[in-house]
Amino acid sequence: MKNPSAPPASFGLRESLEERFLRCRALSRALVAGLNEADAAVQSMPDASPAKWHLAHTTWFFETFLLRDQVPGYRLFDARWPFLFNSYYEAEGARLARPERGLLTRPTMAEVLAYRAHVEEALLAALPRLLERHADLVELGIQHEQQHQELLLTDIKHLFSRNPLGPAYARAPGRLATAPVGSDPLRWIAGREGLAEIGSTGEGFAFDNELPRHPSWLAPHALANRPVTNGEWAEFIADQGYATASLWLSDGWDWVGREGVAAPLYWRPHRGGGAQREGGEWEHFTLAGWQAVDLHAPVTHISFYEADAFATWAGARLPTEQEWEAAAGGADPLSGNQLDTAGAVAPRGERAGEGFGALFGNVWEWTGSAYRPWPGYRPAAGAVGEYNGKFMSGQFVLKGGSCATPRGHVRASYRNFFHPHQRWQFTGLRLARSL
Amino acid sequence: MKNPSAPPASFGLRESLEERFLRCRALSRALVAGLNEADAAVQSMPDASPAKWHLAHTTWFFETFLLRDQVPGYRLFDARWPFLFNSYYEAEGARLARPERGLLTRPTMAEVLAYRAHVEEALLAALPRLLERHADLVELGIQHEQQHQELLLTDIKHLFSRNPLGPAYARAPGRLATAPVGSDPLRWIAGREGLAEIGSTGEGFAFDNELPRHPSWLAPHALANRPVTNGEWAEFIADQGYATASLWLSDGWDWVGREGVAAPLYWRPHRGGGAQREGGEWEHFTLAGWQAVDLHAPVTHISFYEADAFATWAGARLPTEQEWEAAAGGADPLSGNQLDTAGAVAPRGERAGEGFGALFGNVWEWTGSAYRPWPGYRPAAGAVGEYNGKFMSGQFVLKGGSCATPRGHVRASYRNFFHPHQRWQFTGLRLARSL
Amino acid sequence: MKNPSAPPASFGLRESLEERFLRCRALSRALVAGLNEADAAVQSMPDASPAKWHLAHTTWFFETFLLRDQVPGYRLFDARWPFLFNSYYEAEGARLARPERGLLTRPTMAEVLAYRAHVEEALLAALPRLLERHADLVELGIQHEQQHQELLLTDIKHLFSRNPLGPAYARAPGRLATAPVGSDPLRWIAGREGLAEIGSTGEGFAFDNELPRHPSWLAPHALANRPVTNGEWAEFIADQGYATASLWLSDGWDWVGREGVAAPLYWRPHRGGGAQREGGEWEHFTLAGWQAVDLHAPVTHISFYEADAFATWAGARLPTEQEWEAAAGGADPLSGNQLDTAGAVAPRGERAGEGFGALFGNVWEWTGSAYRPWPGYRPAAGAVGEYNGKFMSGQFVLKGGSCATPRGHVRASYRNFFHPHQRWQFTGLRLARSL
Amino acid sequence: MKNPSAPPASFGLRESLEERFLRCRALSRALVAGLNEADAAVQSMPDASPAKWHLAHTTWFFETFLLRDQVPGYRLFDARWPFLFNSYYEAEGARLARPERGLLTRPTMAEVLAYRAHVEEALLAALPRLLERHADLVELGIQHEQQHQELLLTDIKHLFSRNPLGPAYARAPGRLATAPVGSDPLRWIAGREGLAEIGSTGEGFAFDNELPRHPSWLAPHALANRPVTNGEWAEFIADQGYATASLWLSDGWDWVGREGVAAPLYWRPHRGGGAQREGGEWEHFTLAGWQAVDLHAPVTHISFYEADAFATWAGARLPTEQEWEAAAGGADPLSGNQLDTAGAVAPRGERAGEGFGALFGNVWEWTGSAYRPWPGYRPAAGAVGEYNGKFMSGQFVLKGGSCATPRGHVRASYRNFFHPHQRWQFTGLRLARSL
Repeated sequence: MKNPSAPPASFGLRESLEERFLRCRALSRALVAGLNEADAAVQSMPDASPAKWHLAHTTWFFETFLLRDQVPGYRLFDARWPFLFNSYYEAEGARLARPERGLLTRPTMAEVLAYRAHVEEALLAALPRLLERHADLVELGIQHEQQHQELLLTDIKHLFSRNPLGPAYARAPGRLATAPVGSDPLRWIAGREGLAEIGSTGEGFAFDNELPRHPSWLAPHALANRPVTNGEWAEFIADQGYATASLWLSDGWDWVGREGVAAPLYWRPHRGGGAQREGGEWEHFTLAGWQAVDLHAPVTHISFYEADAFATWAGARLPTEQEWEAAAGGADPLSGNQLDTAGAVAPRGERAGEGFGALFGNVWEWTGSAYRPWPGYRPAAGAVGEYNGKFMSGQFVLKGGSCATPRGHVRASYRNFFHPHQRWQFTGLRLARSL
Repeated sequence: MKNPSAPPASFGLRESLEERFLRCRALSRALVAGLNEADAAVQSMPDASPAKWHLAHTTWFFETFLLRDQVPGYRLFDARWPFLFNSYYEAEGARLARPERGLLTRPTMAEVLAYRAHVEEALLAALPRLLERHADLVELGIQHEQQHQELLLTDIKHLFSRNPLGPAYARAPGRLATAPVGSDPLRWIAGREGLAEIGSTGEGFAFDNELPRHPSWLAPHALANRPVTNGEWAEFIADQGYATASLWLSDGWDWVGREGVAAPLYWRPHRGGGAQREGGEWEHFTLAGWQAVDLHAPVTHISFYEADAFATWAGARLPTEQEWEAAAGGADPLSGNQLDTAGAVAPRGERAGEGFGALFGNVWEWTGSAYRPWPGYRPAAGAVGEYNGKFMSGQFVLKGGSCATPRGHVRASYRNFFHPHQRWQFTGLRLARSL
Repeated sequence: MKNPSAPPASFGLRESLEERFLRCRALSRALVAGLNEADAAVQSMPDASPAKWHLAHTTWFFETFLLRDQVPGYRLFDARWPFLFNSYYEAEGARLARPERGLLTRPTMAEVLAYRAHVEEALLAALPRLLERHADLVELGIQHEQQHQELLLTDIKHLFSRNPLGPAYARAPGRLATAPVGSDPLRWIAGREGLAEIGSTGEGFAFDNELPRHPSWLAPHALANRPVTNGEWAEFIADQGYATASLWLSDGWDWVGREGVAAPLYWRPHRGGGAQREGGEWEHFTLAGWQAVDLHAPVTHISFYEADAFATWAGARLPTEQEWEAAAGGADPLSGNQLDTAGAVAPRGERAGEGFGALFGNVWEWTGSAYRPWPGYRPAAGAVGEYNGKFMSGQFVLKGGSCATPRGHVRASYRNFFHPHQRWQFTGLRLARSL
Repeated sequence: MKNPSAPPASFGLRESLEERFLRCRALSRALVAGLNEADAAVQSMPDASPAKWHLAHTTWFFETFLLRDQVPGYRLFDARWPFLFNSYYEAEGARLARPERGLLTRPTMAEVLAYRAHVEEALLAALPRLLERHADLVELGIQHEQQHQELLLTDIKHLFSRNPLGPAYARAPGRLATAPVGSDPLRWIAGREGLAEIGSTGEGFAFDNELPRHPSWLAPHALANRPVTNGEWAEFIADQGYATASLWLSDGWDWVGREGVAAPLYWRPHRGGGAQREGGEWEHFTLAGWQAVDLHAPVTHISFYEADAFATWAGARLPTEQEWEAAAGGADPLSGNQLDTAGAVAPRGERAGEGFGALFGNVWEWTGSAYRPWPGYRPAAGAVGEYNGKFMSGQFVLKGGSCATPRGHVRASYRNFFHPHQRWQFTGLRLARSL
C-alpha cells in the first residue's frame, strides 16, 4: 500500500512544489497517527511543544504569511487561534507564552486537523497565483514544517522519557534494519586549507542565515572520518570524564554540577542485572522505549558542553562550522540516515569506507562556532525576518542533520543552532584537530 | 432516566455502605464524562492534579489499604502503578513527584477506567468480610474519594481558566435554577459565650483531626448571618482595598505585590463594553465559561489574606473555627448548595430568613484559626495516619463546605485546611465581631 | 570601673524611665564595641540586619515617633535617613528593601553614633514634657531597642558563623561561669487545668499583642521541668531523627530535604579527631567561636519543625502557649540566664531543684501555638499599630526569653514569634504531654 | 610630592620588571586609600567582589604561583587564606563560593595589607632568581593585578550606586580636565580587506588567548571614527529604542523585559527639575557621585544586547574583533584616557582629527564576535591554564580598554570578554558597516 508521506522515486529531482507541499503535510499527519489526544497535548518542558501545537503552528505559518497576507478575501479559520499558535513573531503581536502551550487541551486534535485541511485546501486553490510571486514563501513554509517535524519527534521522545512507564512512540525497526554494523576505526582526514567559499551556493533553497556566500580562511586541520560512538562515550564516562573539572568549560562545569549530569540524556545504568549485555552497562530511552545502548552507533543527546569536554579528553577539539562545511561540500545531502517515514528513528552504526562517513543524517554535529551572522548578512524582509537573525547570540552551530531530519531538508551550508546546554535534539559530535 | 450518581431518596439515612460506595464511584465517573483524554491528563499548576490522576489515585487508595492490605491473595492491577498514584504517603515509599502528574499521558483514560472497574469488582466481592473488621477503612475510602471529587472540579476549572479559549466544563444550569435571588441584608447574630464543646460528636464518620471532642471557652462575639457577597467585594475593590497596605497582614501585602493581585481569582473587567451589565464591571470564569458576576452570590476564590483584609476593611474580623462550629451545631449539614450531580456548579445567592443562611454549601468559609491539633489529638494508626496530622502547620481552617462538596460529606466539626495564599478552591468568608 | 550598661542595684524596681533609657542606649553601644566598621555593615542573609543598621533603626524609632511627631520644632538629623532606617512601617512610606540593608557602607559607624548622640540629647531635653503624655511611646522605644539588642547579637553570630575563619564576637566567659553544671533529670509537672486567665495582667509594660487578658480552657496536661538538652538532641540525631519521615510535619520534611538539614544550626562534627571529647561528636559555633557542645546545656538554634519532630520522637508534644503561660505565672521573669552586659552569651546547663527550671532566659521555647490575636485584640493606634498585628500569620509563638534577651524585657505573657523554619535565634523547646 | 603609583617618565620603555611590579602594587594600595573598612568588604552583587578581596586575591596569585610553587622553603602567610582568596582555579582545590566573598569582614584591611607587604617582601627577595626562569609568571601576576584594578573600580562604583546616599569614590577631576570638548562628527573609515594577520605580534606580553597569530579574511567594511556618544544614545531612547522589539536580539528583548531596562546602567532622569540642564534629561552615577550626563562623552555601561540593538537602530552593526584589531594595528595603545592614578575616572569627549579617535581607553568596545579560541589555541600549562580558555563560551569580545584600564595593560590583540547582559564595566560601542 502506498504511503503518501514517503518520498517518491522522483524525490528531490522533478517533484513539483505542490507535490512537496502535499508530501510534507502528509508526513506531519503520519507522525501523530499513533498518539492519543493527551500525548499530543502535554508539554514536558518549556523547550518542547506539544505535537498538536506543532501541527497547528505550521499551519498558522501558511495561513498567516500566505493566505492572510497574499490571498485577497481569505478569512481566518478562527480569529482567536493566531494568538495560540504564533511562536515568537513579535511583528505578529501578543501570543500565548511558550511554557503555556501545554494548557491547550482545546482545540482538540480533530479541530486542529480540520484547521489543517481548511488551510491546505485554500492554499492549493491559491497556489497557481501564489507561485508567480510568492513561491519563496511556500517553500519557506515547507522548510519550516520540516523543522517542526524533527522537533515533534524529539519533543514526544522527551515527553515519553519522563513517563515512568516508558511508553514507545513506535515499534523498533525490524532486525535487518537495526543489526549493529560495527563502526569504522577512527581516522583523520586532512581538511581544506586557505581560502574556502562558505555559505549557500545559490542552488536550491537556503535560509537567510546561509547568505551571503563569502570567502573564509581555514587554518591547517584534520577531521575525524566519523562521529564519536556510544562505545567511545562509555570510555569517557569510565575515565571519570564527568568528574574532571579540567576537561570542561567553566559554564559547562557549572552545568554539570547544577544539573547532576553524569551521562548523555536518556542514558541510565542497565536494570537488567548480572548477565553480560550487548550494550555494556548502559541502556537508553528511544522512540521504541528503553533499549540497550548500541556501542557502535553515534552517541547522541549530548550538550555542547559535553561535546567540548569529550573533545578535550580525546586530545582534540570540535571543528569550526567552516571546516565542517568545506569538508561536506562534495557529499550528498540526500544520503544517510534521515527521516523518510514516521517511526522509531534512531542513529545507527554505519560503515563509510574511505572518506567521510555519515556527514548527513544520524546526528547533528556540534561545531565549535558560535552562531553569528555571515559577513554582509541581511535578515529577510517582513515578519519572517525574525526567523533566524534574532537568535544570533548565545547559541552554537550544528551541522549535517539527524535521523529525525526530513530527507531533503539539509545541505552543507545549513546552519542549525541550539544553546550549549540543550540536548534533547539528536545531537552528537565529530572530532577535529589543528595541524 | 435514572442517574446512578444522584442521591437516592433514602440519602443519608438508610443507604448501606455498599450503596454509598457505588454511588460515590459512579459520581466520579460522571464528573469526567465531558472531558476528552487531554483535558483529563494535563496539570495546570503543581497544586492541581489531572482528572485522570484523581480517578486513579482514589482507586489506588482502595486497592492499597483494603485489597492489598486486607484481602489475602489479591494481586495488584499493575505493579508499576502505585508509584504513579500514591499522593504523599511516605510509608508507602517512593512516588512520582507531584508537579509531574501531568506527564502521565499513559496509562490512558480507558486503562484507568478498567483499573477502577477491576478494583470495584474485587472490593464488592470482598465487602462482606471487610465490613466485619474494616468498615472504617471502606468509609475512609469513600470520604477520601469525595474530597477528590471536589478537587477534580476545582482543578479542571483552573485548567480551563488558563486556556485563552475559555472552554466550559458544562452548560450553565437552566434559568430557574440560577435566577439571581438577591441576598439578605447583613445582620449580626450573637454567638455562644463561655464553654462550648468542640469536635466530633461521635455520631457518624469523622476524620481523626475532628477528635477528641473537648471544651473550649468562647469570648463574646457575633457572626454575620450570611457570607460576604460579590457586590460587597466589588465595593472593597472600588475603595482601593487591594492598594491599601494598612488593611493587610504583612505576608498578604507581600503576596499582593509579588503576584499583582487586584481581584478574586478568575475575575476580570468586563470585555463587553459600554452597555450596563447586570454583573457590574466584572465577569468571572466559571465551570460554564466566562459569565457576568452575580453581585448577590457569595464571593469565592479568595485567599485567606484577602478574606482577612476584607474583614479589616469592614471593621470586623474572621470567626474562629470554634465560634463557627458552635454556631453551626444546630444547622443541617445536608442542606444548602452542595454537589449532587455532575455539572457547572457555582455559588449562588440564597435567602435565609431569620437565622444563619448558607452555613453549609456554596463556599468554604475561611476562619481566623490556624490548623493545629485539638488537645489530645492522635493520628490514626498506620499509613492513613498521614492523612491529616502532618499538615498541621502553615495552613488555616475552613468550614462548611461548598457547591463542589459532595452532599453528605461535611458536618459542623469538619476541618478543611489550605495555605493562606491558595484560592482555587470555592473559598469565601463570613464576618465576625468581638463584643 | 563602672559599666554604664550594666543593671543597677535598683534594677526593675525604682529605676526611672530616664535611667532605663540611658542604660538601654549604653548597652547598644557596648554591644558593638568589639566590631569593626565592616562587621557592623555586612548583612549575612535577608533575615538578618547589620549591627550598624540596628543602631540607627532604633534611633530612627525614637526620632520619628517621639521627636518628629511629638516635639514641635525638632529637625531631622538627616532628612535622607528615614528612608534608610525605617524597617517595615508602611505608614511611614517608601524605604530601603530589607535585603539591601547591607549595602549601606555609608553612613559610617561614626556618623551613626553621632546620630544616636543627637537623638538622645534631644530626647532627654524633651523628656519632662514627653513623660506627661507620651511615656508609653518612650517605653515602647526602649522595649523596641531591647528587641533589637537581641537581634544584633544573633545577627552578628550568624555573620561570623559564615566566615570560614570563625571569628569570635567576644571571649568565652571565664571558667567558673561556664563549668558545665550537669542537667536535672527530666520530670513531668502537671499543669493547670480548666479555666486560666491568659494575657497581660496589666502590671508594667505589655505589647498590644498580649492584650486583652481573657479566659482560656486548658485540657489536662503536664510540662517537662526543663528544656531539652544538647545531649538529648544528640540521641535524636543518632536515632536517625532527621531521616525518619514519620516524625515530621509535611512542611518540615520538605524543609529538611530541601535544605539538607541534619543537625541544629551551627553544629558540625568535631574536627578534632580520635580523642574522646567532652562534647561528644559535635562542636558548634558560638559568640566565642567554635566550641565543643556542652551536652548538659539546653539545645538551641532549632526550627519549629525540628522541635516538633523531636517531641514526636520523644512521645510527647510541644506545649501550647496558654499552657506555658499558665505554668510561668508564678516564676520570676528577672531570673535566669539573660543578657546583662555585652559578651559571648550562650545557654548553659542549670539545676532547678523541685519546680520548673529555666522558664526565663537561656532559650526561647517553641510552643505549638500559631501566632494569632487574642480574642478582642486591637492593634495600637497610628503607625506603631504595625508593630505586632500585621505579622499574625505563618508564625509560631515562643515563650520565656533567651540568654540574649535583655533582662527585664520579658514576662509570662510575652509573645515572641518566628516562622517555623527560622532558627538563627536562641530557640529551644520544652516537652509537654496531654494527660 | 611624588606619587609612587604614577607612571614614570620611562613608562613602558625602560622600566624594569621590578619597577613595574612595585608601581602596580602601589597603585592597588592607592585605589583603596579613600575607602573605609566596610566599603572595602561589602559585595554588592555576585558579579562584583569587595575591594579588600581584590587586594588579597591578587596577592594570593603571587604567593601561590610564584612563592609557594617556585621558592623553596616559603611558608604561607596564613594557611587558611588560600581557601578565601582563590577565585576560580579548580586545580587549586575547594574555595569560598563567589557570592560569599562579601561575608569576609575578617581578615581586616590591616591584615590584608600586612599580607600584601609580606608577599611583596618575599617576592622581591626571590626576584633575582625568579627572573631567570619565571619572569613570565611575574609578568602574568602584574597583568593579573592590573585587571583586578579595573574590576576594583567598577565594583566599588556599583556598590556606591546602590547606596541611596550616592557616595562619591573621589572628587571629580578639576574643571580643565573635564570641560566637555565636544565630539567629532561621525565619519566612516574603510577597514582593511582580504587577508589580515590577527593575534599577538609576539612583542611584549600577551595572554594565551591572543595566540597564535594567524591569517583571517576580512570582508569589505567600514568603521566609525569614534565611539557612540551619550547624546546619540539619548536619541535612541527618545526614538523608543528600548520599546521596539524588532531592533533586538531575542535574548536581548527577553532581558529588557525581565529586567525592566530602559537606559544605560546608572542613568536616571534628572531630579533637578525645570531649568535647562547641560546633560539633557539624564544624570548618571559616576565615581564622583551623581552627575549630569555629558552628551559628548562616549556612552558607557551598556550591555552587548543594547550595543547590538543600537547598531541595528542606526542601520549599522558591531565590528568583528578582527576588523577592530586590524584597524587598531597602527594606533598607540599607550594613548587615550586610561588609568594612571587613583581617582574618579570617567570616559570623556575627545577630538580625534582625521583618523580613528579613542581606539584605546575611554570605553571597552563591544564587538560582534563571540569569545572563542583562535585556530591552534593552546591554554598555558598548569593551573594558570584556567586563566582564559575555560571561559570561551557564552561571552563576547571587547576591545581597546577603558578609562579604568591601567595604562600599559592593553594592545590591539588584547581580548576582553563579558557576558552579553553584563554592563557594570566601562563598556561602549563603535559602529561598523559592511560595504
